[in-house]
Amino acid sequence: MAPNNDPLNKLSELLSLLPGVGDRTAQRLSYHIGRMPTRDAVALAEAIKAVTENVRQCSVCCLLSQSDPCHICVSPNRDRSRICVVEDSRDAHAIETSGSYKGLYHVLGGRLAPLDGVEPEHLSVEQLLMRIRKGDVEEVILATNPDMEGDTTASMIKDALEGVGDMKITRLARGIPSGSHLEYANAAIVSEALKGRREG
Amino acid sequence: MAPNNDPLNKLSELLSLLPGVGDRTAQRLSYHIGRMPTRDAVALAEAIKAVTENVRQCSVCCLLSQSDPCHICVSPNRDRSRICVVEDSRDAHAIETSGSYKGLYHVLGGRLAPLDGVEPEHLSVEQLLMRIRKGDVEEVILATNPDMEGDTTASMIKDALEGVGDMKITRLARGIPSGSHLEYANAAIVSEALKGRREG
Repeated sequence: MAPNNDPLNKLSELLSLLPGVGDRTAQRLSYHIGRMPTRDAVALAEAIKAVTENVRQCSVCCLLSQSDPCHICVSPNRDRSRICVVEDSRDAHAIETSGSYKGLYHVLGGRLAPLDGVEPEHLSVEQLLMRIRKGDVEEVILATNPDMEGDTTASMIKDALEGVGDMKITRLARGIPSGSHLEYANAAIVSEALKGRREG
Repeated sequence: MAPNNDPLNKLSELLSLLPGVGDRTAQRLSYHIGRMPTRDAVALAEAIKAVTENVRQCSVCCLLSQSDPCHICVSPNRDRSRICVVEDSRDAHAIETSGSYKGLYHVLGGRLAPLDGVEPEHLSVEQLLMRIRKGDVEEVILATNPDMEGDTTASMIKDALEGVGDMKITRLARGIPSGSHLEYANAAIVSEALKGRREG
């Protein structure tokens, strides 16, 4: 219908490179943008540029932030004796949103997935060890995702931390999520909740 | 975690306005763009701008195109006696890709959905009637989507065309999709296929 250098096709192509965006979705988004008011489309384009121009990875904790070191690493209000290790910046974002953590972060940049070729050296583990060797860290919270790859990654880091420092190594609690119903929880969730039961 | 004017949050917000993109997906895409090489992110931003700057709606058939009238409306190689009525430019794209249609198009810009407030006057029906009143149209192919809203839209257009011109009004054939298996087709599909059976 349209030549291959059609702006709609070009945009579809680039959108389909984004994670979770298939060819069909990319085409739908592209045509939607074609019908958007110019002002809105330009705002979107500018927002993308603003991210790529202003967002960088913190050289200390690998968090995506507007400054390097990031606002958390330089904040005088954070507890510098705690490091929460997460797979991705978005996980740190989720923890920040909870408002219940005031320590520092360390973003691994992924999780172990040998089948996809993600080995320990692809994660920022060495950088984490360097931070801990500097001392002053009392607790490392392994906050990888609660699934098999996340658990494997946490175990690998625990092993790597062995003998590096004299700190506590903890993991996030597992159990029934607040606000949910027991009847909808699957067997693994209930089993974890029972295993981790506390005196009430 | 980050102030509200954070470029990542701003981009998330704008992305979440796109159809089918929820808050979570928007955030995931935004952080992905934050980690993309600058060159790739800029290319994406530029592609969005190129679409909004160069793509417009054809004033004749409402197709999204780089020119107005669109390349199909002005092409000397198209059969001007046939108009294929589709809901959306993407549907025209699908038909073009099939390579089996050489007539013109008319994009309705949606489908009837009274519950969502989409009434006949929100579609380019009047514009279609004007095109037909000019004469020379021998066939109008109603190629709305094969579901309830699409069928209602097609019927409404058929009624609107009544008495406007002396042309054939056709619809796309329905049946078992090529390349699929009978056993996976649902009852409605099989029933349509039987109803529309032809001598072999």
